[in-house]
Amino acid sequence: MHLRLVMLGFGNVGRALARLLLRKADVLRDDYGLTFTVTGIATQSRGRAISAAGLDLAAALALVERGESLDALHAGLPVADTLALIDTCPADLFMEATWLNPRTGQPATDYARAALGRGCHLVTANKGPVAHAYRELKALANAHGTGFFFESTVMDGAPVHGIGREALLATTVQRVRGVLNSTTNFILTRLEEGVPFAEAVAQAQAIGVAEADPSTDLEGWDAAVKIVVLANVLMGADLRPADVDRTGISGITIGDAQGALRAGARIKLLCEAARDGDTVRASVRPTALPFSDPLSQVSRTSSAVTFETDTLHELTLIEGDTDPTTTAYGMLVDMINIARGRHRAGQSA
Amino acid sequence: MHLRLVMLGFGNVGRALARLLLRKADVLRDDYGLTFTVTGIATQSRGRAISAAGLDLAAALALVERGESLDALHAGLPVADTLALIDTCPADLFMEATWLNPRTGQPATDYARAALGRGCHLVTANKGPVAHAYRELKALANAHGTGFFFESTVMDGAPVHGIGREALLATTVQRVRGVLNSTTNFILTRLEEGVPFAEAVAQAQAIGVAEADPSTDLEGWDAAVKIVVLANVLMGADLRPADVDRTGISGITIGDAQGALRAGARIKLLCEAARDGDTVRASVRPTALPFSDPLSQVSRTSSAVTFETDTLHELTLIEGDTDPTTTAYGMLVDMINIARGRHRAGQSA
Repeated sequence: MHLRLVMLGFGNVGRALARLLLRKADVLRDDYGLTFTVTGIATQSRGRAISAAGLDLAAALALVERGESLDALHAGLPVADTLALIDTCPADLFMEATWLNPRTGQPATDYARAALGRGCHLVTANKGPVAHAYRELKALANAHGTGFFFESTVMDGAPVHGIGREALLATTVQRVRGVLNSTTNFILTRLEEGVPFAEAVAQAQAIGVAEADPSTDLEGWDAAVKIVVLANVLMGADLRPADVDRTGISGITIGDAQGALRAGARIKLLCEAARDGDTVRASVRPTALPFSDPLSQVSRTSSAVTFETDTLHELTLIEGDTDPTTTAYGMLVDMINIARGRHRAGQSA
Repeated sequence: MHLRLVMLGFGNVGRALARLLLRKADVLRDDYGLTFTVTGIATQSRGRAISAAGLDLAAALALVERGESLDALHAGLPVADTLALIDTCPADLFMEATWLNPRTGQPATDYARAALGRGCHLVTANKGPVAHAYRELKALANAHGTGFFFESTVMDGAPVHGIGREALLATTVQRVRGVLNSTTNFILTRLEEGVPFAEAVAQAQAIGVAEADPSTDLEGWDAAVKIVVLANVLMGADLRPADVDRTGISGITIGDAQGALRAGARIKLLCEAARDGDTVRASVRPTALPFSDPLSQVSRTSSAVTFETDTLHELTLIEGDTDPTTTAYGMLVDMINIARGRHRAGQSA
């Protein structure tokens, strides 16, 4: 089968995906019978390009990496903005990895609605659409019989959602616990080492783990969005990030972190969603986790999640250090799984 | 869809599966459109029964738990043995959880060959057929277009094989490392606590973690069979348990275990399979793992595996404490995934 791909966002993750598509093109064809052309790319600040015949992905990478605009590759009438590109570009599957405001989920949620509304498949690495509009977008995909996959929204390419879709079957997820935010992970580890809070934040910014405005991470918003994604997708909840009982890490001191260590524990920004009667409650809160808890061992940019179900007592998934390629890989896996029909119920043996 | 199930083996795992099937029957019907009858059960020492109309599973459980034979439920001519039952019982899917000789893979491999040879689906919790005859059995299933799934062969119900099938796509698994044997895990932990080796073995036997003849576990055979399953299925190898460079734990002393602890490490019976040029080499060997390695944290009956691939640096799956129900659950998931066609390539979006 052949897929016409449209890439929304061409930042670190989008470009890593482009390189991965080039590197894996032969394997996709030989092992999965899957070929593709990239018919459109939309960026925030480097223009946009459409070509029904297929864009030269290597040329697109070279242009953007030289700081130039993709407009040079565009064939046809000008396209006003990303939404106009979504509406007009020849497409089977959109691969979305754009910038996100985690508190509103925009503009990614509008992009998702437009792509699915056209009857196309959507793969997104963006937490926003799933945290803010999962039920609506899933219903839209179901109505069109298309795939809406989002493996890379939580723990990058680690198969959190793949496990949910393929392995946590006929079971009730009672509780999900996770350490899912790298910035706070990095800073809390530095506090254990005696580095003052402000200096730890500056170090995280220096190596690119924290953003210029780190408040989204430090106040637990990023973690809240992630636990909402897990609660809504795996536990049938209908939460929004603002529903999460959320405490950030700015009150944590060197004394707290080192005191926990001496007591055989490490402070982590723990995300949790748990059933409480008929509802699901979610929280994000700095928590001292004993060394024996696998979640306590997560450090630097790794992350981890533990599922508790009525059939498996505890199942923990840990992802080692990550980079844009690990995120892009989750999108590639989603693309393959849509190509082989994993979005359909499939009820005949 | 409706499946006629035949259960081979009705020991701890088989009976846990029977109870799980009864408990989940409504969910299977409502969420997956899947109904079933159990048309046959074969046991090692409690007889066998066939009923085309469906056996009463609760009655079968009650009989065996009272120490009686299933022959009372059998309708029709006598059936000589398990192979005769496999050949004659009305069946769509065999669920196999029989006793195994890990060094030969028998008799489970013969059962698997017979069930797949009839054109039925096969779910097995048994490492033997996969370690000793994976390529042959997979080819047999492919020739009939049937499913051959075995989630519970390694780490019980934890989705090791589900991840391989659904998430490690278009990637090369470079290395697999695991701590996969509970008996040695238990004994090594006791050595850390200062319990002498022979006493630790006796304690493991007393709580049912070790068998009366513990040599299969202590000499690393169980671990060798498991790493061969992972190497053959996930890395395309064609190894047999005897090919594994295998060292057991009988040479480990209290001094070794406590010395490792003081150095910030724990001795585990580490299973490893790694690419070496065009081949895959596998080993099982007591290894001091630093606390920072997630595999070092595994204790009691939990187990863990780490995958290293060319796209994900490190992905670790840890299963918490297990029991026969967690093993049975992996079989139930396999059954659902076969019912929804996950054994077919499925190439149309």
